[in-house]
Amino acid sequence: MTKTKHKPKLKSGHAPGTAFFTGHKKMDQVEISVLKFNEEEFSEFNCPDVKTLLPHLTKTDNVVWVNVIGLHDEKTIEEICLHLKVHKLTIEDILNVGQRPKLEEHKDYLHIVVKMLMGGTTPDTLDIEQLSFILTDNILVTFQEKIGDVFDPIRKRIREAKGLIRKKKSDYFQYIVLDAVVDYYFFILEQFGENLEDIENSLINNPQKSDLNKIHIIKREAIELRRAIYPMRELVNSLGNLDDKIMSAETKVYIRDLYDHTIQTIETVEIFRETAVGLLDLYMNIASNKMNEIMKVLTIVSSIFIPLTFVAGVYGMNFHNMPELRLKYGYYMILGLMIMVFIGMIMFFKRKRWL
Amino acid sequence: MTKTKHKPKLKSGHAPGTAFFTGHKKMDQVEISVLKFNEEEFSEFNCPDVKTLLPHLTKTDNVVWVNVIGLHDEKTIEEICLHLKVHKLTIEDILNVGQRPKLEEHKDYLHIVVKMLMGGTTPDTLDIEQLSFILTDNILVTFQEKIGDVFDPIRKRIREAKGLIRKKKSDYFQYIVLDAVVDYYFFILEQFGENLEDIENSLINNPQKSDLNKIHIIKREAIELRRAIYPMRELVNSLGNLDDKIMSAETKVYIRDLYDHTIQTIETVEIFRETAVGLLDLYMNIASNKMNEIMKVLTIVSSIFIPLTFVAGVYGMNFHNMPELRLKYGYYMILGLMIMVFIGMIMFFKRKRWL
Amino acid sequence: MTKTKHKPKLKSGHAPGTAFFTGHKKMDQVEISVLKFNEEEFSEFNCPDVKTLLPHLTKTDNVVWVNVIGLHDEKTIEEICLHLKVHKLTIEDILNVGQRPKLEEHKDYLHIVVKMLMGGTTPDTLDIEQLSFILTDNILVTFQEKIGDVFDPIRKRIREAKGLIRKKKSDYFQYIVLDAVVDYYFFILEQFGENLEDIENSLINNPQKSDLNKIHIIKREAIELRRAIYPMRELVNSLGNLDDKIMSAETKVYIRDLYDHTIQTIETVEIFRETAVGLLDLYMNIASNKMNEIMKVLTIVSSIFIPLTFVAGVYGMNFHNMPELRLKYGYYMILGLMIMVFIGMIMFFKRKRWL
Amino acid sequence: MTKTKHKPKLKSGHAPGTAFFTGHKKMDQVEISVLKFNEEEFSEFNCPDVKTLLPHLTKTDNVVWVNVIGLHDEKTIEEICLHLKVHKLTIEDILNVGQRPKLEEHKDYLHIVVKMLMGGTTPDTLDIEQLSFILTDNILVTFQEKIGDVFDPIRKRIREAKGLIRKKKSDYFQYIVLDAVVDYYFFILEQFGENLEDIENSLINNPQKSDLNKIHIIKREAIELRRAIYPMRELVNSLGNLDDKIMSAETKVYIRDLYDHTIQTIETVEIFRETAVGLLDLYMNIASNKMNEIMKVLTIVSSIFIPLTFVAGVYGMNFHNMPELRLKYGYYMILGLMIMVFIGMIMFFKRKRWL
Amino acid sequence: MTKTKHKPKLKSGHAPGTAFFTGHKKMDQVEISVLKFNEEEFSEFNCPDVKTLLPHLTKTDNVVWVNVIGLHDEKTIEEICLHLKVHKLTIEDILNVGQRPKLEEHKDYLHIVVKMLMGGTTPDTLDIEQLSFILTDNILVTFQEKIGDVFDPIRKRIREAKGLIRKKKSDYFQYIVLDAVVDYYFFILEQFGENLEDIENSLINNPQKSDLNKIHIIKREAIELRRAIYPMRELVNSLGNLDDKIMSAETKVYIRDLYDHTIQTIETVEIFRETAVGLLDLYMNIASNKMNEIMKVLTIVSSIFIPLTFVAGVYGMNFHNMPELRLKYGYYMILGLMIMVFIGMIMFFKRKRWL
Repeated sequence: MTKTKHKPKLKSGHAPGTAFFTGHKKMDQVEISVLKFNEEEFSEFNCPDVKTLLPHLTKTDNVVWVNVIGLHDEKTIEEICLHLKVHKLTIEDILNVGQRPKLEEHKDYLHIVVKMLMGGTTPDTLDIEQLSFILTDNILVTFQEKIGDVFDPIRKRIREAKGLIRKKKSDYFQYIVLDAVVDYYFFILEQFGENLEDIENSLINNPQKSDLNKIHIIKREAIELRRAIYPMRELVNSLGNLDDKIMSAETKVYIRDLYDHTIQTIETVEIFRETAVGLLDLYMNIASNKMNEIMKVLTIVSSIFIPLTFVAGVYGMNFHNMPELRLKYGYYMILGLMIMVFIGMIMFFKRKRWL
Repeated sequence: MTKTKHKPKLKSGHAPGTAFFTGHKKMDQVEISVLKFNEEEFSEFNCPDVKTLLPHLTKTDNVVWVNVIGLHDEKTIEEICLHLKVHKLTIEDILNVGQRPKLEEHKDYLHIVVKMLMGGTTPDTLDIEQLSFILTDNILVTFQEKIGDVFDPIRKRIREAKGLIRKKKSDYFQYIVLDAVVDYYFFILEQFGENLEDIENSLINNPQKSDLNKIHIIKREAIELRRAIYPMRELVNSLGNLDDKIMSAETKVYIRDLYDHTIQTIETVEIFRETAVGLLDLYMNIASNKMNEIMKVLTIVSSIFIPLTFVAGVYGMNFHNMPELRLKYGYYMILGLMIMVFIGMIMFFKRKRWL
Repeated sequence: MTKTKHKPKLKSGHAPGTAFFTGHKKMDQVEISVLKFNEEEFSEFNCPDVKTLLPHLTKTDNVVWVNVIGLHDEKTIEEICLHLKVHKLTIEDILNVGQRPKLEEHKDYLHIVVKMLMGGTTPDTLDIEQLSFILTDNILVTFQEKIGDVFDPIRKRIREAKGLIRKKKSDYFQYIVLDAVVDYYFFILEQFGENLEDIENSLINNPQKSDLNKIHIIKREAIELRRAIYPMRELVNSLGNLDDKIMSAETKVYIRDLYDHTIQTIETVEIFRETAVGLLDLYMNIASNKMNEIMKVLTIVSSIFIPLTFVAGVYGMNFHNMPELRLKYGYYMILGLMIMVFIGMIMFFKRKRWL
Repeated sequence: MTKTKHKPKLKSGHAPGTAFFTGHKKMDQVEISVLKFNEEEFSEFNCPDVKTLLPHLTKTDNVVWVNVIGLHDEKTIEEICLHLKVHKLTIEDILNVGQRPKLEEHKDYLHIVVKMLMGGTTPDTLDIEQLSFILTDNILVTFQEKIGDVFDPIRKRIREAKGLIRKKKSDYFQYIVLDAVVDYYFFILEQFGENLEDIENSLINNPQKSDLNKIHIIKREAIELRRAIYPMRELVNSLGNLDDKIMSAETKVYIRDLYDHTIQTIETVEIFRETAVGLLDLYMNIASNKMNEIMKVLTIVSSIFIPLTFVAGVYGMNFHNMPELRLKYGYYMILGLMIMVFIGMIMFFKRKRWL
Repeated sequence: MTKTKHKPKLKSGHAPGTAFFTGHKKMDQVEISVLKFNEEEFSEFNCPDVKTLLPHLTKTDNVVWVNVIGLHDEKTIEEICLHLKVHKLTIEDILNVGQRPKLEEHKDYLHIVVKMLMGGTTPDTLDIEQLSFILTDNILVTFQEKIGDVFDPIRKRIREAKGLIRKKKSDYFQYIVLDAVVDYYFFILEQFGENLEDIENSLINNPQKSDLNKIHIIKREAIELRRAIYPMRELVNSLGNLDDKIMSAETKVYIRDLYDHTIQTIETVEIFRETAVGLLDLYMNIASNKMNEIMKVLTIVSSIFIPLTFVAGVYGMNFHNMPELRLKYGYYMILGLMIMVFIGMIMFFKRKRWL
C-alpha cells in the first residue's frame, strides 16, 4: 500500500515536453503565495490567479519567493513558467512528480528537484512529496502538490528579520530552503529510528506475528528514504560547483555545510537500512528460538511417556497365560521399573544439557 | 521456460561478418513500411520488396523512416544495409538478436541496438525484442523481428503534425523513437510493480505453494529487465556526447531528459529486484510462521495427552494385585489427578506464553 | 573432484624463468602442425620434430600458423621459443598452465594467454584448457596441452579460401583465432544454461537429494567459468589499444566486435552464477515446503487421535467401581463423544486453513 | 539502548550558524585547562573563566594547547571561538555532537572533527565522544563534552620533555593528539576483539539464549565503530595533502605513518564486522544442530515404541473370541515379536547412520 | 584461538617512533646471518653480534644480504637500522609485527613489509609472519621474528651460481626474495585448497558435528589469508613504478611477472573464501536434508500407528454393553479394518511421493 501512495500516473505516449500532471489531484484550487523582502522591508500576500502574480516576477532588488501549491492545473503552471522563460522539458519535469532529485543549469534559470519528507511518526505514514525550484536572478519559485511544508521556520525568520536571511540575495535564499528540507530529513530520520527501536524492543520482549509485517513495511520505507535522499549528494555537490556568478563564494561556505549534513543523512539511512534487514534476522532467530524451546518440551515429554505407555500396554494385554500378572508384587515391580526408566530418562536429558 | 523464449540460435562457427539470423522465424514475409515527412507534408506506404524501397533511401530534405519487420530473410536485410554502406559486422549484429544494447559510431552511419519491452501484464508474459537502428543523414531504418511495436503514438503525432516532430531533422527523430522505447519501459515497469504487489498481497493474506514459483519467475524477469535496461545508461550517455554535427545541440537538451528517464527506469528495476528478493524472505518467514503455529498445537496436544494416556494405561494393566483398583473412589481419585495434570499443563503453557 | 582436474603442479622453488611444465602429461609425443597461406595458395603439413619446423619460421609474405600440441616436453617448446627470441619468463608462462588470461607486449612479439573451454554437455564435464599465443610479424604459434581444439571452422575457411581470412595479415588471423575461442564460449555457455534449466525443471517437478550435489557442482563450474572468461575483457581491450603497426586499424573494427562478444559472455556468466545461487534457495524452499506438508499431516493426525486414544484409555482402566461402564448406552455415549471431538478438531483445522 | 546513548538532540528549525548544543549536559561547569610549552619550559594551569583564558590565545613562540571540557554552555564556546576568528558554521559544528569526522581548511584556522573512542571493555559499554580541534598558528584548542580523554601519555611526555614533542611546532602537536586518538582505537578494537572471542567461545562450548542478544549488541557496536573510524581515512589523507606552510614536510612523514595506522584500524573493523555477522550464522547453526539432535531422539523413541504400543493395544482388546489369547505361549510369542521389531528398528536406524 | 596466535601486543601510549617490539619473544638470541656475493665469488657466515656485522654494511660491488632473525632485542635492530640511516618510524614499523604489507620509498632506502605464510598443512596450523626489508644500494636487510623461512631455494641457487642471481644487482635480488615469498603463497594456497576439499568430501560423504567447527576455522583463515595477500597487489605495482635508478628496466620485466603471480594468488584466495562460505550453506543443506529424512520416518510411523492404536484402544474399553465384542468374528473384522487403514495410509504416502 505504501507503494501505491506515491505512484504517479503514466505519462507514456505523450510527446516530449507535453505539460501533463502525473500525480493525483490533492486540493481544489492552486494556491499562490508570495514573499517579497529585502534588508529593510518585506511583504507577504496570496495571489488569487496568475495574472495578479506576473507583475511581481520582475527583476528588482527584492528577493521574491513564490510558492505554488497544487500541480493539477497544468495551465497555471505553464503560464508562470513561460513568463520566466522556462524550457518545455523543465515544465514537464515539474509536473511529473516521479522525478529523481536533480539540479539542471539552464541559460536563464536553475532548475532543482528534491524530495520533501513529511509525516513518518509511525510506520507506514511516511509522506514523500516532490518539490521543484526555479531560481532566476532574484526570484525563487517553488512548486509542490499539496498544502503543508517545512518552511515555517524560514517564514518566521524573514518576518522577524532574524539571522542573515534578509541581508542576502536569492542564492543564499535558495540555500536556506534546501537547508530547511535537509534539516527536516534529520527529524524524519529520528522518527524512523525511533520506530525501528520500538519494533526492536517489541521483538526482544515479546515477538508477535504482526511484527513481521511491520518489519516488512519499515524495510520498504528505508528503501524509499534512500531513493529520495541518495541523489541529494550529487545535487548539493553540483550546487557547490556552480559558477560564482550564480552561487556566490560566500554562500558556497554554507553549501559545504549543507553537503556535510546531506552525507550525514545518507549515512544514517544506510545504517537504518542495514538495521532493518538485521531486524528480520533477529525476528527469525527469536521465533526459531521460541519454537525450539516448545519442541524441546514435546520431545522430552514424548520420549519419556511413550516408552512408559508401552510398558503399561504390555501388561494390559489379555493373554490368559501371563505369569507376571499373577505375581504378588508384580504391579509394584513394574511401577518401580517405570520410575527407574523415568529417572534414567531425566538424567540422560540433564547430562545432554537439554533440560 | 521464460529463458528459452528469448534464446537465440548459435552463430558459433561462422566467419565474422557472416549474415546469419540467430532468432526464430516469427512471421511469413518481411514487411517494410516507410514514413516520409517534412514540415509541410508526409507520406506513408508499404514496400512489397527491397527493389521498391531502395529509391526512397536517398539524401533529401525529408526524414525517411523505414521500419523493417522480420529478420529471418537475411538477403533482404543485407540488400538494404549494403545500399546504405553498412559494415558487414553491423549486419551481423542486426541479425544476431542476442545483442547487448549499444551505440556504435561508424563513418557513414550510427548503429544503435536497444531492447524493446512488451507484454508483461501478468508474470511470465514479459516479451523482450531486439530493435536495431541505422541512422544516416536523413534516413532512420529500424529492424525488428515481429509485428507489434511501441511507436503508434509517434505515427499519430506525425500524421497530425503534433509537437516538434515534423519540424525537426532525423537526429531529433532518432531521439523520439528512443524516447518512445524508454517511455514504454515505464509502462512495463508499472505492470511489473503491480505484479509484485499482487504477489505480495497474496503472500500476506493467504500464502500458497504456487506463490513460490511466481516469485521465482518474477525474480528471473527482474534479472532480464535489468539486463535489457542497464546498458541503456551508457548508450544514452554516448548519444549525448556525439559530435554536434551528428546530434544537434538543441536535440541534446532532449537527450539529457532521456538520460534522466533512463536513470529512473534503472533505479526502479533495482528496487524491484531487491523487492523480489525480499519477497522470497517474506514467503519463507510467513511459511515458517504458519508451520510454527501448527507445530505448537501438536506440541501442546501431545504434551498434555501423552502423560494422561500413560496414567490410564497404568490402571488398564491386568495385574491381579493392584489395590488401587479395588478402592471405592479409586476411579474418581485418578480422574481428579488427570484433571489436575491437565490444568497444570495448561497453566505451564500459559505462563510460558505458548498459548 | 572438478577442482583437482585442472590443478597444475607446483612450480614453487624454481628460479624465475625456469622452463617447467606444471600440468599433467596428456599425450605421448608433441605434435606440431603447420598451416601456411597467402591470398593465392596454402599448404598444410605436420612436422615430426623441431628441426623440420624451424626453417618455416622466417619472415615471408605468408601467414604461418604453427600449432604445438603437448607441453610436457619442455625442450621442444624452449627450442621453438628461443628461435623466435621469446623471453624466458614467457616460456615459463606457456608451460605454467595455471596462468590467468593476459596480453603482454614484448619488443619482438605479442604474448597472449587465454582459456579454451571445451566439453560441458553435462554438469561436471567442463574442460578448461590453457592456450598460449606467440605472434610475430607473420607467424602465429599456438601452444596447447592436448589434442582437440575449436579451430576446425578456421581450417576449413582457409582451405576453402572463404571470407577475408586468406586476404589478410597475421594480425587479422590472430583476431580470427581469438574470435573462434570466444565464439565457442557461447556454445559452452548455452550448454551450461541448458544444464541449469534441466536442474531447475527437475527441482520444480520432483526435487531429489542428488539435485543438491548437482547444484553444488554447477555453482563451482560457474565460478570456474567466470575465472576463465572475466580477464578476457581487459585482454581484448588491450588488444584494441595496441599500436596501429601491430594491430591494423582495419582489424581493430573487428576487435571492437570481439569486445562486444566478450562483454556478452561475461554478462551471461554473471547471470548464470546468480541463477545457480538462486537454485540453492529454490531447492531449500521446495524441500522446506515439502517437509512442512509432511509435518502438517503428522500434526493433524496426532492432534486428533492422541486425545481420542486417551479417552479410550480411561475406559480401559480396570477400576472395580466405574459406574459409566455399567450404563446400558455408556459405550455409545462415549463413541458419540469421540465422534464429536473428531469433528470439532477437523473444523478447527479447517477454520485455521491448515487443511 | 546503545543507540539512544549517543543520540544528539535535534537542531532542526534553527537558522544555519546558530550556536546550539545538541548533546546532553554531562557536567556542571565548563573546564578550561591550558598547556603552554616550548623546548625550554612549559606551564600547565586551569582557567576559571574565558576572561582569564583569552590573554593566552596570542601568537607567541610557545605551543598553546587549550582543552575545553563541557559544551553545554554555548556562550563560553562562542567567546573562545570568536576570539580566534572562527566562522559561525564551525561553531555550530563544534556544538553539534552528531558530526561526521572531517577536516575543513579555513582562512585563519584548521577545523578537525574526530570521534574519540572510550570504554568498551564489555559489550554495550562502548563510549563514542566527539572531539573538535581548532588549529591556528601556534594554538590548538580541543573541545569535548565530558571529563576523560586519551591524552595522558601526551601530557606526561610534555612534562618530562620526552621525544620530539617539546622541540616541534603546533602542526606536529596536532599530529601527536590525532595519533593518540588513533592509537587508542587499537586499544578499543582489541577489547572489541576479545569480546567477540568470548562470545564465540561461549557459543561453541555452551550456546545460550542470551548470546543472541549479545551478538545483536556487538553487531550494532561494530556498525558504530565503522561509522566513527571510516571517515578518518579521508581526514588523515587530507591532512597529509595540506600546504607545506600549514603542515611541514617533516611532520608529513609522521602523518603518512598515521595514515597507515588508520587503514589498519579500518581493516580491523571490517574484519570484526564480518566476524560479528558470521557469529550469527554460527549461533544459528549450533542451535539448529542441537535441535536436530533432540529431534532425532524423539523420532527414534517414537518410531520404535509407537508401533510396539499398537501391538500391545491389539492384545488388550476385549473381544470374546481372540484365539491367540488362549494359546499357552501366545504372550511369549508376542513378546518375542516385539523384541524382534525393536531390534529391527535399531538396526534400520544404525544402517541409516541416524544412531 | 587462531586469532590470538597472531595478536601483537599494544603499542598504545608510546611516543611515535619509539622502538618497541609488539610481538612475543620466540627465540633466545637474535641471529644475524650474512650472504655476500658477486658474479665471481660468494661468502656465507653468521655474525655473533652487531659489531661484527657493521663493517660488512658498506657500499661495495657485492650484493650483501643480511638476515636478522628475532625482533625482541630492540637495541640490536635499532643499531643496524641507524647505521643504515633508517628513519625512526621505519624502525617502529619493523618492530610492530601487526603491520599491513606496504612499500615506502625513503631518501636513502626502500622499506618493504610483507607477510610470509608458513605451515597450513591442516586447518588451524596456518602461520603468518611479518617480514620487513630495508634495501639500500647494494645491501638488503631482512627482519623476521623466528627461525624458518622460504628462502632455502635462493640460498641454494646462490651457492650453485644457478640462474641469473649472481650476475645481477641488489634490485634483482630484492625481486628474487619477494618472488620466493609469493611463490610460497601458491604452496600454502594449495594446502588450503586441499583442506577445503577434504572438508567438502567429508561433508558430502558423512557430515559430522565437528565439520561445523572446521568450516568456521577455515573461513577465518581465508579472511586472514586475504588480509595478508590483498595489499601485495598495490605493493608489487608500486615496485614496478619505481624510478629506473632504483629498479632497473630489466628487473621490471620480472616484476611484471611477479605482479601476475600476485593477482593469481589474490584471485585464488577470493575463490577459496567464496567456497568456504559456500561450504557452510552446503553443511546446512545436508544437515537439513538428513533431518528431513529422519522426520519423514517419524511422521509416517506416527501417522499410521496412532490411529490404529486408537482403534485398539476403543475395543480395549471395559463397557459391559459393547455388542461388537461378542460377535464371533468381531476380532477378525477389526483386524481387517486395521490392515485396510494401514494399506490406505501407505498408498496415500506413496501417491504423495513421501515414500
